Amino acid sequence: MNFINDDFLLENKSAQKLYHDIAKDLPIIDYHNHLSPGDIAEDRQFKNISEVWIAEDHYKWRAMRTLGVEEKYITGNGSDADKFQQWANCLPYTLRNPLFHWSQLELARYFNVFDLLNGKNASTIYQKTSEQLQQPQWSCRSLIKKMNLEMLCTTEDPTDDLKHHQFLSQSDFSVKVKTSFRPDKAILIEGQHFNDYIDTLAAVCDIDIQSVDDLYQALSNRIEYFHKNGCRLSDHGLTYIPYENVACGKLNTIFIKKRTNKELSPQEVQQFHTAILLFLSKEYHRRGWVQQFHLGAMRNNNSRKFHDLGSDTGWDSIGTYPIASGLAKFLNHLDTDDQLTKTILYNLNPADNAMMATMIGN
Amino acid sequence: MNFINDDFLLENKSAQKLYHDIAKDLPIIDYHNHLSPGDIAEDRQFKNISEVWIAEDHYKWRAMRTLGVEEKYITGNGSDADKFQQWANCLPYTLRNPLFHWSQLELARYFNVFDLLNGKNASTIYQKTSEQLQQPQWSCRSLIKKMNLEMLCTTEDPTDDLKHHQFLSQSDFSVKVKTSFRPDKAILIEGQHFNDYIDTLAAVCDIDIQSVDDLYQALSNRIEYFHKNGCRLSDHGLTYIPYENVACGKLNTIFIKKRTNKELSPQEVQQFHTAILLFLSKEYHRRGWVQQFHLGAMRNNNSRKFHDLGSDTGWDSIGTYPIASGLAKFLNHLDTDDQLTKTILYNLNPADNAMMATMIGN
Amino acid sequence: MNFINDDFLLENKSAQKLYHDIAKDLPIIDYHNHLSPGDIAEDRQFKNISEVWIAEDHYKWRAMRTLGVEEKYITGNGSDADKFQQWANCLPYTLRNPLFHWSQLELARYFNVFDLLNGKNASTIYQKTSEQLQQPQWSCRSLIKKMNLEMLCTTEDPTDDLKHHQFLSQSDFSVKVKTSFRPDKAILIEGQHFNDYIDTLAAVCDIDIQSVDDLYQALSNRIEYFHKNGCRLSDHGLTYIPYENVACGKLNTIFIKKRTNKELSPQEVQQFHTAILLFLSKEYHRRGWVQQFHLGAMRNNNSRKFHDLGSDTGWDSIGTYPIASGLAKFLNHLDTDDQLTKTILYNLNPADNAMMATMIGN
Repeated sequence: MNFINDDFLLENKSAQKLYHDIAKDLPIIDYHNHLSPGDIAEDRQFKNISEVWIAEDHYKWRAMRTLGVEEKYITGNGSDADKFQQWANCLPYTLRNPLFHWSQLELARYFNVFDLLNGKNASTIYQKTSEQLQQPQWSCRSLIKKMNLEMLCTTEDPTDDLKHHQFLSQSDFSVKVKTSFRPDKAILIEGQHFNDYIDTLAAVCDIDIQSVDDLYQALSNRIEYFHKNGCRLSDHGLTYIPYENVACGKLNTIFIKKRTNKELSPQEVQQFHTAILLFLSKEYHRRGWVQQFHLGAMRNNNSRKFHDLGSDTGWDSIGTYPIASGLAKFLNHLDTDDQLTKTILYNLNPADNAMMATMIGN
Repeated sequence: MNFINDDFLLENKSAQKLYHDIAKDLPIIDYHNHLSPGDIAEDRQFKNISEVWIAEDHYKWRAMRTLGVEEKYITGNGSDADKFQQWANCLPYTLRNPLFHWSQLELARYFNVFDLLNGKNASTIYQKTSEQLQQPQWSCRSLIKKMNLEMLCTTEDPTDDLKHHQFLSQSDFSVKVKTSFRPDKAILIEGQHFNDYIDTLAAVCDIDIQSVDDLYQALSNRIEYFHKNGCRLSDHGLTYIPYENVACGKLNTIFIKKRTNKELSPQEVQQFHTAILLFLSKEYHRRGWVQQFHLGAMRNNNSRKFHDLGSDTGWDSIGTYPIASGLAKFLNHLDTDDQLTKTILYNLNPADNAMMATMIGN
Repeated sequence: MNFINDDFLLENKSAQKLYHDIAKDLPIIDYHNHLSPGDIAEDRQFKNISEVWIAEDHYKWRAMRTLGVEEKYITGNGSDADKFQQWANCLPYTLRNPLFHWSQLELARYFNVFDLLNGKNASTIYQKTSEQLQQPQWSCRSLIKKMNLEMLCTTEDPTDDLKHHQFLSQSDFSVKVKTSFRPDKAILIEGQHFNDYIDTLAAVCDIDIQSVDDLYQALSNRIEYFHKNGCRLSDHGLTYIPYENVACGKLNTIFIKKRTNKELSPQEVQQFHTAILLFLSKEYHRRGWVQQFHLGAMRNNNSRKFHDLGSDTGWDSIGTYPIASGLAKFLNHLDTDDQLTKTILYNLNPADNAMMATMIGN
């Protein structure tokens, strides 16, 4: 019997019945992913499985590094075939990490490969999957259709152009492709590229951003632009949701301090986060959007690698933040003004699962 | 086979043996509940199951709200029959929440109803249980006797009258009904009704409370009153146990600030909590009482609903507090003076279970 | 079938195959224990099982206290036989605590005792094991050989003499006995015996410790001494790893304050911890050592017992510290200078397991 079989992970009769009779044929509505709208728009034909699997997956990068693979075969100039070979060498050692299950499931379901990938069969599987990927039945859109998606929402920055989404909304692609608005860079005032980001945002909006009110205007403009292009969803990746109130005048002072390259105190950082998030949440509520908050990740922990490779390259961890209190106060603030829109909460640390379950319904 | 059967939740032979041979016939000594001593004293005859189940159970309220039921059918003026119908509609969706198991167990054990309650059979079950509840074999005391209780301790505030307990101690009711002393309102100086509460306490004790010493005197009087009425147990519902020492003079200053409606700093609040709790714990120790601490709940998170409905109406969550350090220091302070009485600790967040297990025996 | 049998804890075929075919015959490399190097050097012959089991095991002490045993039979002047009887009385009640499994495993594997120890068979088992322990096949070294150890590393303080290790390195004992360098007492400046400790360290090194630089020199000397005696491993028992940077001048001021018996602020304590740990970690890196950090324990929670019995006598708990952030910054600081040596992290609180798993590979 194959490791990936019809009853994979379905360990009893109830699970099998629930999956086969009910869940299996339901379409997927994927409201959080990092797919490239350009790839979907042009229906990209991938050259090989490394382009799909390794070129942008920092979870795999991290596992490869932990197992001692040279950076050359991860983000460096190693060949696609060599990178796949290195990943295949690693995969057996990822057993009990979801990477193992995800990889074997994808090989079985979309490439009809049921052998367990390892260093020995890597080149055969690389060959077979590359041949498949060069055929139209494995193009970017075809892969998405194999997954029975009804809708997917990519993630864009406020400064991003939505031309690919505009193109897709006019196309005959049967899966709806939408965006989600992710303004993290406008919130995280402590970031070393914040001022550059504000300059870019100013240019995109053609607004001279001199004050927090100007920043609000710019963000509001971009929310309106996203709204007109069908966006009804926002997303935020934060360590935790702070709740530090601040008077309007003080808020602007914090912003000006940062714009003039002065150091902010931890409290000022939290006050700025709180104010911008409250502003954004009210904008979402006004337009009937859903807001998503991804909490609990502690990011960019390796300064050397952050300098070399940037963020989202495999140097994040689960954090230990006492998040309940700030989150509850933040949601309550919005509810008090009856401006709390539909909200989706994710938290990375499973130790917080019980707490998170009780956040619903307050 | 019924969902509620003799081996419900007993998943192997050892569990079945332990339950049927040992646990099943042991009497229950319930040292924490919120039953009404008045209902027990007068042996209340309930009109219908909504009076028993829904009128005061904010866990059910919360589940109903989460599932979209109108407040009219929760705490509003909907009829008892309609409220039960709404609860029955919700119950199937609570599967995996203890509410599901508790409800089905109670229906089976005390009302001989083994069907799984849902929207379709709600009116039949409402009818059947209401007929039962109007008979003497389902009166308040009869229900308690069906549960094989040896003793139960209700929860009273220091300002409460214990007349029902006095009446019950003279009655022929076979279950011992005691009280537990719960002085939360005298501890939580940050509460908006603290000053009103102190005024009530002053009136009940006939003491003019001008200082912390007067407050201590008043609390001591009430502890003595509870003691004379058979109380040997206290209870405290706190987010966490703080440990912030404060000089006596400073403590009184904090109290006076609050009494004159001045704002307290977070540190002053914690200093007051610490001092009052230490005082109370020593009083309990002197009299050989047991003290209970319920930790980890984050309460009254929804300000609008707190304003409309008050506390304990279904707007609480599990908190994430790093509680070990303050708790250890607090218990150690009492032990250092050899004034640590028998203590029962509860903590709401299962992430703290391992820590809590190691608190025993220090 | 015996409780301790060949498949103890091996609950399915895969577990049995992995253990019997692969793990069982692998030697143990024990890089953390508190065995006495003197006992190994002289190949101590124990008089009875209480000397091995109870005389120094504060986990058993704790369980006995929790179950109401008098201190006389724990750390007091009760006879060895009586202490064993008391422990045997307690053991059945430790079911589900690892103490139960450990104790039964040791009796079965090294003493051929398969009966479950309890108050009734205690004296028979005491007799049998004492007879065994007085024979050469149960001497200290023989017991270690029965455990299939390849290497073991005891734990020594910087001020400790390594004469036993020197003796053992020349002996014909087939198990390699090494040490690990544990400088906790030089780090924990808040400890009440810190100044005495620094005086002892100064005497051992023959260095007049007047400043942090002198302290660094003394520690460096002792690291060199350990290195020359084959040590390649350090160990640290800390509640959490702090990360509070401090200028060099300020650091020395903190040290002088403590040396002149002035009170340090919590921040100064953390600054000192951070600086000493960074210094030590760089010393380890230079010499290619491995560093171990034991985190999450909250120690010496009972002041009375700490006064009477000292540390490591059974009064510790699991702590609840949000440890991720400081730990990540500390490791990153070392990595930034490319001075992060191989590191082993332990954390006592299982609620932190998911976080700890993600610390690897940053």
